[in-house]
Amino acid sequence: MTSLHERASALFKEIQSHICSALETVDGSALFLSDEWSRTDANGGHGGGGLTRILADGAVFEKAGVNFSSVNGTMPASFAAKLGASSEDLPFCATGVSLVIHPRSPMLPTTHANYRYLELGDQAWFGGGADLTPYYLFDEDARHFHSVLKAACDKHSPAYYPRFKKWCDEYFFLPHRGETRGIGGIFYDYLGRDDGADHEQLFALARDLGFAFTDQYVPIVERRKAEPYSDEQRHFQLQRRGRYVEFNLLYDRGTHFGLQTGGRIESILMSLPALVRWDYCPIYAEGSPEARLIEALKTPRDWV
Amino acid sequence: MTSLHERASALFKEIQSHICSALETVDGSALFLSDEWSRTDANGGHGGGGLTRILADGAVFEKAGVNFSSVNGTMPASFAAKLGASSEDLPFCATGVSLVIHPRSPMLPTTHANYRYLELGDQAWFGGGADLTPYYLFDEDARHFHSVLKAACDKHSPAYYPRFKKWCDEYFFLPHRGETRGIGGIFYDYLGRDDGADHEQLFALARDLGFAFTDQYVPIVERRKAEPYSDEQRHFQLQRRGRYVEFNLLYDRGTHFGLQTGGRIESILMSLPALVRWDYCPIYAEGSPEARLIEALKTPRDWV
Repeated sequence: MTSLHERASALFKEIQSHICSALETVDGSALFLSDEWSRTDANGGHGGGGLTRILADGAVFEKAGVNFSSVNGTMPASFAAKLGASSEDLPFCATGVSLVIHPRSPMLPTTHANYRYLELGDQAWFGGGADLTPYYLFDEDARHFHSVLKAACDKHSPAYYPRFKKWCDEYFFLPHRGETRGIGGIFYDYLGRDDGADHEQLFALARDLGFAFTDQYVPIVERRKAEPYSDEQRHFQLQRRGRYVEFNLLYDRGTHFGLQTGGRIESILMSLPALVRWDYCPIYAEGSPEARLIEALKTPRDWV
Repeated sequence: MTSLHERASALFKEIQSHICSALETVDGSALFLSDEWSRTDANGGHGGGGLTRILADGAVFEKAGVNFSSVNGTMPASFAAKLGASSEDLPFCATGVSLVIHPRSPMLPTTHANYRYLELGDQAWFGGGADLTPYYLFDEDARHFHSVLKAACDKHSPAYYPRFKKWCDEYFFLPHRGETRGIGGIFYDYLGRDDGADHEQLFALARDLGFAFTDQYVPIVERRKAEPYSDEQRHFQLQRRGRYVEFNLLYDRGTHFGLQTGGRIESILMSLPALVRWDYCPIYAEGSPEARLIEALKTPRDWV
């Protein structure tokens, strides 16, 4: 019988392939390169591996990374403890698909999604989420993104979307800026471990959400990709990408976890945008689209 | 009688002014703007303040920040404990000068320096350091930078430079990259607290090092500022600036301390370069200047 880890791993690989094909079609110019890698576990043995797919310098996408991994080994007690497990070395296996898309045009939002399944000792759980980070805020796009996520969640439980939406607003938050990273989406973790949820249903949820990604993002890209933009708007985008880097390096648990457990550096940091700026104390005119975005990030809104 | 905190504060302000004048002269185009700020302490009272000076878009310097601060208040027990003090709320005062210079040309190195004096409860100490981050490595420049630092340290104790040089190599290290941030310099902390060193001598050390900054850096700028460079070399500089951001956001204690204690965000993050790139898995030809730099960062060298 095929284990849940194997089935999840096959699912996430299929989702990766599905997403890359869809994004290549939208871009119309660049293709995803494939970088297969394997991992040595802390104990020196074979620890699984992954397939990192990167599209760079496309017509629409400046940098897009879609990573699949399926790793296993022994998790040091110190990290197991951080995941709420007992403080001893534990066998683990983890598989997931993780992506970050940075379009070139500031009229297009950056987006991130990640769906994963972990086993640690005698525990197992699902985690995941997707969020949208616009530079210029179109309410219509935010509503579309959230609506598709809500529909996929609602198929499984009406309680999911409101709970995961709130979790997302709380997780993707930069305390030193008093801002969320973007206009949210969903985030969940430890499902099927702490809450007794059925693993088959959670597998189906991950499948539906993974395949919903293109529906939630591609229509926005199609709608906005031909919009003209100015150098000033591009400049603002690069400044806002700075916030993205601040979140990922200062707060993101996945990034810290990967770096501290000897994950593959280039696959972990593929989430960082190609070009980024930090200017001292930028000021935006009251009522401008730039000020309006920042205001929206200070007070999470209900989009559906 | 003037307290040591007041004298150190006056000294650091004088060093700030001295450095800004010297850099304006070298740049020959842009001037430092002044941004005076005040701070509210955790207890709601006045908590001191500072003067942030920023030069942007100069002929030589793309972004240079020189910050002076003199702050005081009550340090929460959780932070006092991280500084090795007892776990209770403690009165503190801290003053320092801190700078990061990002030149436009990749032939010019980025540099950082910071000298500070802290009092926490009944303890008091000095900390500081300066380091150099070249994009293209000229041995002559690295030797010059270290020689000036060594001479300033040697005036006070022959033991200082070797100890502080090693401390710097250990502190400015990115474990996930297996690289130092640059070719080092000096770093020291807790002097006069743990080692019984005389505070007047440490004050004199901070003064000599603070005023030595221009001697250690300006001659390098003068020597290299007219060197031509290509778009590819500029590209490499932006990639390497990414490492600078990684260090400051992932590891720098000063940055974390500032962000967690409600420091002034824009003054803390003025250390980040203006323009930065992250490319997936960049590869540099063996024996190229780019590969030679990275090699040098993997094995700290003795420069004097």
